[in-house]
Amino acid sequence: MGALHAGHARLIERARQDGHHVVVSIFVNPLQFDRPDDLERYPRALESDLALCASLGVDAVFAPSVQEMYPDRPMCVIHVGAVATHLCGRYRPGHFDGVATVVMKLFEIVSPDRAYFGQKDAQQLAVIRRLARDFNVPVEIVGVETVREADGLAVSSRNARLDAEERRLAPALYNALREAERLIAGGEVRADVVKSAATARVPVDQRLRLEYLEVVDPEDMQPVERIEGPVVVAGALWVGSTRLIDNVRCDKVVLP
Amino acid sequence: MGALHAGHARLIERARQDGHHVVVSIFVNPLQFDRPDDLERYPRALESDLALCASLGVDAVFAPSVQEMYPDRPMCVIHVGAVATHLCGRYRPGHFDGVATVVMKLFEIVSPDRAYFGQKDAQQLAVIRRLARDFNVPVEIVGVETVREADGLAVSSRNARLDAEERRLAPALYNALREAERLIAGGEVRADVVKSAATARVPVDQRLRLEYLEVVDPEDMQPVERIEGPVVVAGALWVGSTRLIDNVRCDKVVLP
Repeated sequence: MGALHAGHARLIERARQDGHHVVVSIFVNPLQFDRPDDLERYPRALESDLALCASLGVDAVFAPSVQEMYPDRPMCVIHVGAVATHLCGRYRPGHFDGVATVVMKLFEIVSPDRAYFGQKDAQQLAVIRRLARDFNVPVEIVGVETVREADGLAVSSRNARLDAEERRLAPALYNALREAERLIAGGEVRADVVKSAATARVPVDQRLRLEYLEVVDPEDMQPVERIEGPVVVAGALWVGSTRLIDNVRCDKVVLP
Repeated sequence: MGALHAGHARLIERARQDGHHVVVSIFVNPLQFDRPDDLERYPRALESDLALCASLGVDAVFAPSVQEMYPDRPMCVIHVGAVATHLCGRYRPGHFDGVATVVMKLFEIVSPDRAYFGQKDAQQLAVIRRLARDFNVPVEIVGVETVREADGLAVSSRNARLDAEERRLAPALYNALREAERLIAGGEVRADVVKSAATARVPVDQRLRLEYLEVVDPEDMQPVERIEGPVVVAGALWVGSTRLIDNVRCDKVVLP
């Protein structure tokens, strides 16, 4: 979606390491925005994006207009089932249908052998893995590690919207997730205990509102009650009028 | 869906004329059946299908198992909007979602330059044209003329289910459609007049039940009230426990 940052740069670098030709798509997809104000406020920076792509040796940028992608209102769209019913899917109705629909179009247009997506958007990554698998798309989906600021805040285009005080508060989400990670690594298997302890780490502040914090299966994004295998702990935090998401994956489970 | 007949043979012949390699997919797709008994009763004839394909010079047949196409319940499916809300879409809930989903999978697996579909299934053809357009699938959709028996009955795998008396009654649908065609060619522009006159041609018989008979726009399959351009007149007729569909396209409109 453009407004490229260090997280996108890492995707591009991974793609360059793996492949011969790197194509970057830049398209702020109206179909995946559930709130018109969020679509309107979403940062756009095509010129600096193109400069960054050039500096990273990208072979081609596909930056279509809305008119080019949707010459008329699409009659056929992807509907995403269970993998989209929790986490962001619960709070952003239609969001993942819009994501899956535009990604399917991009797969058809660009026809990549591999496609790179950030692990920061863990549910999006799970949706796209299922999309490719369910439709037999001949593409390998590669998840790339989240890039973080020095204080742990996950790099995101939306961070640009934060004022100085909000920016100071924003790492609260990652701190909560790390608390969950610590408990799970220590052998805690009760998801509700993990969620309570992690939630308690979010400071009480009128600018902060935790939308969700969940422990889910990394494959299908369904909430788990007992942590008996790999899980993703994912959360969404409103910081003022900006919604941030983040997650940690916990693979090492010490069973009691 | 196999149980190949003269209509399919015509698709194959058209494909052979146009292209270098012809691939036939044979798969009775559970996802597009709204009634379990219809799925169970749908004719299957893989051995004779393969023999017919061989005799017609087909290069490859793709005949996967249900397990191969759906190793688990798909989480991502295509949802088809307005083009599927009338005609068969109204009476077979979810049918065109299932058709679009499996055809998208087949496009990804087979990766055809051109794909051939019978005009007998006019709404299916319209759905697939929209599917390819909406998702930028690099495939040309070719509609192929309906093959008919001597008495006008459109060739269909389902005809095999008719007993002798039902078979005698079955051309009633095409006769009704031809009455519509005659009126439209004669300049009638009122769709309700056309529908009434056509419907009146279906004999009163306890084995016959007309499910629908509609005049629609060929592009989006929406009902029209005034016939001022090309239209499709489409109908579905139950003959005993077998549901038959057919349609005629009327391009030549004599405006009053």
